[in-house]
Amino acid sequence: MLTSIATVSISGALTEKLHACAAAGFDGVEIFEPDVIASDHSPEEIRALAQRLGLSLDLYQPLRDIEGVDEQTFAENLRRAEATFRTASRLGIGTILVCSNVATATVDSDEVSADQLRRLGDLAATYDIRVAFEALAWGRFIDDYRRSWTIVERANHPKVGLCLDSFHVLSRGHDPAAIRDIPGDKIFYLQLADAPALTMDVLSWSRHHRLFPGEGSFDLAGFVDHVLATGFDGPLSLEVFNDTFRQTDPDRTAVHALRSLVWLQDKVAALQPELARGRLHAVAEAKPPNGFDFVELKAEDTSDIEILLEQLGFTPSGRHRTKPVTLWVAGDARVVLNEQQARDLRPHVSAIGFSVPDAAATSHRAADLMAPIAYRRTYADEQELSGVVAPDGTEMYWVTATGGQPPGWIAEFHNGMPAAASPVRGIDHVNLLQPWQTADEAVLFLTSVFGLSADAPAEVPGPTGLVRSQVMRTADGSIRLPLNVAPHVLDGSSVPQHIAFACRDVVALARAARARGLDFLPVPDNYYDYVAGRFGVDADTVAELREFNLLYDRSPEGEFVHFYTRTVGSVFFEFVERRGHYDGYGTDNAPIRLAAQRQRQTERVRSRVAGPSRRVPSGANLEP
Amino acid sequence: MLTSIATVSISGALTEKLHACAAAGFDGVEIFEPDVIASDHSPEEIRALAQRLGLSLDLYQPLRDIEGVDEQTFAENLRRAEATFRTASRLGIGTILVCSNVATATVDSDEVSADQLRRLGDLAATYDIRVAFEALAWGRFIDDYRRSWTIVERANHPKVGLCLDSFHVLSRGHDPAAIRDIPGDKIFYLQLADAPALTMDVLSWSRHHRLFPGEGSFDLAGFVDHVLATGFDGPLSLEVFNDTFRQTDPDRTAVHALRSLVWLQDKVAALQPELARGRLHAVAEAKPPNGFDFVELKAEDTSDIEILLEQLGFTPSGRHRTKPVTLWVAGDARVVLNEQQARDLRPHVSAIGFSVPDAAATSHRAADLMAPIAYRRTYADEQELSGVVAPDGTEMYWVTATGGQPPGWIAEFHNGMPAAASPVRGIDHVNLLQPWQTADEAVLFLTSVFGLSADAPAEVPGPTGLVRSQVMRTADGSIRLPLNVAPHVLDGSSVPQHIAFACRDVVALARAARARGLDFLPVPDNYYDYVAGRFGVDADTVAELREFNLLYDRSPEGEFVHFYTRTVGSVFFEFVERRGHYDGYGTDNAPIRLAAQRQRQTERVRSRVAGPSRRVPSGANLEP
Repeated sequence: MLTSIATVSISGALTEKLHACAAAGFDGVEIFEPDVIASDHSPEEIRALAQRLGLSLDLYQPLRDIEGVDEQTFAENLRRAEATFRTASRLGIGTILVCSNVATATVDSDEVSADQLRRLGDLAATYDIRVAFEALAWGRFIDDYRRSWTIVERANHPKVGLCLDSFHVLSRGHDPAAIRDIPGDKIFYLQLADAPALTMDVLSWSRHHRLFPGEGSFDLAGFVDHVLATGFDGPLSLEVFNDTFRQTDPDRTAVHALRSLVWLQDKVAALQPELARGRLHAVAEAKPPNGFDFVELKAEDTSDIEILLEQLGFTPSGRHRTKPVTLWVAGDARVVLNEQQARDLRPHVSAIGFSVPDAAATSHRAADLMAPIAYRRTYADEQELSGVVAPDGTEMYWVTATGGQPPGWIAEFHNGMPAAASPVRGIDHVNLLQPWQTADEAVLFLTSVFGLSADAPAEVPGPTGLVRSQVMRTADGSIRLPLNVAPHVLDGSSVPQHIAFACRDVVALARAARARGLDFLPVPDNYYDYVAGRFGVDADTVAELREFNLLYDRSPEGEFVHFYTRTVGSVFFEFVERRGHYDGYGTDNAPIRLAAQRQRQTERVRSRVAGPSRRVPSGANLEP
Repeated sequence: MLTSIATVSISGALTEKLHACAAAGFDGVEIFEPDVIASDHSPEEIRALAQRLGLSLDLYQPLRDIEGVDEQTFAENLRRAEATFRTASRLGIGTILVCSNVATATVDSDEVSADQLRRLGDLAATYDIRVAFEALAWGRFIDDYRRSWTIVERANHPKVGLCLDSFHVLSRGHDPAAIRDIPGDKIFYLQLADAPALTMDVLSWSRHHRLFPGEGSFDLAGFVDHVLATGFDGPLSLEVFNDTFRQTDPDRTAVHALRSLVWLQDKVAALQPELARGRLHAVAEAKPPNGFDFVELKAEDTSDIEILLEQLGFTPSGRHRTKPVTLWVAGDARVVLNEQQARDLRPHVSAIGFSVPDAAATSHRAADLMAPIAYRRTYADEQELSGVVAPDGTEMYWVTATGGQPPGWIAEFHNGMPAAASPVRGIDHVNLLQPWQTADEAVLFLTSVFGLSADAPAEVPGPTGLVRSQVMRTADGSIRLPLNVAPHVLDGSSVPQHIAFACRDVVALARAARARGLDFLPVPDNYYDYVAGRFGVDADTVAELREFNLLYDRSPEGEFVHFYTRTVGSVFFEFVERRGHYDGYGTDNAPIRLAAQRQRQTERVRSRVAGPSRRVPSGANLEP
């Protein structure tokens, strides 16, 4: 189906928006009137630009507070409407959105509203313009699409039809099934928006918190299914008011928006396979990943990370034959260290590798969803890795998993030590810090490209603000990616990323690591009094937890014992032992960690300020 | 009365919080349990630190999900409570907050809850601790202070009393008058928080959007009045969960918080003058300002501003005899230009002068409210200006207005030209850009120190995000300070400050300014089509508006015609003509202005990138 987007959904001047939508691949746009008023381009210039860019101008919007008024007000409203029709004509737009009256309605009557819409339709007809009437969720009298349809039906005018907006229907909890009874040719326009489940006044919810399909909690596939059942064949158009997207780069948001429509069509196609064939853009199928293949850390100097890994029982398993890359292994956990000649590049998570059932299928799916391709130099006899760049900049690669076999790329590493037995099972989760601008985009990206699903979001109070955490995962937990959005940082501290390794016996692992000199993140004594009090853990166990700076959590499903290392660059490691069917992340312990990390950072700044200036030998066991 | 604050209200580690609260002048604090758990100081160390700082530890909080449960759960809850009592004892805290059960309550019975609280009281008594029971607004069964009081009365235990929190009472719309019937000695603790009028689920409202008294919409003076009528003589304590204060500097937030309690006591004192004498801290009275005395702009080089002012008909009225400062006058508008030898200091609003009825009274009031003093070098025979530094860093001065006479400090300026007749009346408003961190603080600061009041906030959609605008003003409009919070800036553009001058005939002023070469902010043609359509303005008037880049607004009270200059540094000027009783700011036109300003900025960046490198002579009519 054709795709469209309201210009209010993205940032910038109107001409920038048109360029962004065309570049992303939209077929058309709906023009938000304030964008025209503020533009230094005439309506004729805007029309010509859209034509050159190959964009249809599908809708001009909105015309507000028209019907349900006394005759004197209506005369004034018709005069006002005519000015809008004139502008729409100059733009070459054939359909205008008329919202149900919010501010000036005084007459609560289907008959009066229908009559006034009919007369508006007569005026519109002289400009060959259609009027699409929409029930706003907060309309004064008309706030339900079923009533707006009754009125349009009663107006019975060829130029008067309906505009349906998923937000206005689903936010009110109205059953969308009655859409099926509306003739498709009377649905003049269809606007789509998702939204998170929030309990707040519907106007603020709508104006600030709409999301692109796939990022919220609405059943948009079901909604569109109802609309398509009517025979509707107009474009699927996005109208998303969102404080964040108003601030992000329009080119980027436009691609993100179109991805949401591709994903949505695929979902609808799954509901209506026979419909899909002709009209819906289906996406190549690919099963979600079934495990982590590797994590890559990049830095100018990775020696501090190597020290940590060695202390944690990882084995150096070879150097890549053509690249400045080393491989470290413990159990099924593979960590790739990539030394870059980039000055002051501090250690950070640069790439994640997934095991997938069919790499070619995942590649097709990623391409269909316009995921930006990650580039990796590959020589003739090396394994080709396909990958994409996630919204936060992390590269994500995939290889086909071959049951129990190590991946082929390992053969490219030479001179490694044979891997020792290890209590480490593999990578449990990778926690990625997200810029606030791309956090919603990341949810849709990981949902659509890799088939991950979003757990309920959590908030963690840190010493300098709330950290918002959103876990993306596979149902079986083989992939877990907590995405964190950190507060604005005022005191120079920051929230690092981390890699968590699952292990069999975390106490034994911690003991061995301490014997090798590991620098644990220190846990305050008060925490252990709290654990004893909260969970009734016995004194011996508490003493053991305290000895190794271990943290503890319990749920009805099981127990969770874990510890953290110091931070190197922007990364630290966590080791976790899941007992029973514990399925969480010790979220209640995260504030303890954030406080301890900030404490260390503050001490470091103090010792830097107070201490004598001295050169630290490269590779020394000191935090950078 | 004694003052206290919950440690959850401010940022940082627990010890930083204690230092901040003591430095601000609080008498005590209530300790939030998670702050202790995450602290690397033992309870005994925390107790000793508080003692040294002169802070009483008034409350330990919260103990959750205790009552309304089956006997087996209650036994486990008592064990958990005892651990908390032990920690409180080590801290030397005598009162513990117990919230009504949210998560685990299964028994909806006053009798069961009262019995369980009584047994909790018995246990607490062995630690000489009091239990303050609080009805949370989202309690499972107990969500109303009247019910929590019934239960406490029924528990009838000397160690079991009530905790009242203004948020939990007022957010639910419960009438606080019944507080008067509770014996004061059974109110064990009083927590105060304000909040904005929001329609959303009460838990999110409480956890993220609480404000300090005077910043929201609750009648806190009335609430405290009810509590004091009971004979309650504990501290007034603040418990404010707020996403912003969690991120701001704790020292700053603590002063801000204490100011809110000083202001609140003054409000309560006005309700209860007889009570005020002994117990309430009253603030020196001072009438609000009745006009702008001057605005000062500071820069390394003010010549671009001088060019603008000259084009706008201002008269250079002299150079200060001891400072690098010049005075420019038009009507009653006085602009002071202050040239600083600070490299790259671009023009910005550095100070505002107010006319006040009694400068000494305002000085006393500012001191009582702990407003930071602004320093200005003053020589022997110069007029002393008292002033404070507002939260955004703008200095605010005041002098006593002497009806119709120019202020005394003008005599310090020499060699000026005699002021010409001018259509300018005076300064209409000064629009100050606020950092998001201090926007709420600014509302309380201007309310309490200068007696301004807050209009309903507005949101202006700009091309790169929403600008939030909050007008602070006197009732008569003689002082108007729109405070703007700009979106996060991603593309290098920024929202400047501006000074608006009121004038008699804005068209004539614009005509004269254009003749002198003024560079207007250009308004797009489409805007004038919109004005004609929206307001039905006649063609001649529209042509005149268009000719001079004038903007237009109309309300039921009157009309508003205005124009903007180009931006110099971080400042531009606006000239406004208010016709009839128009009382607004042309907010609907602000998006046009924001778009035009961004357009100019983008062009400037482009011409800088594309154009030949050349030196611009200082003072040339080009934007920096």
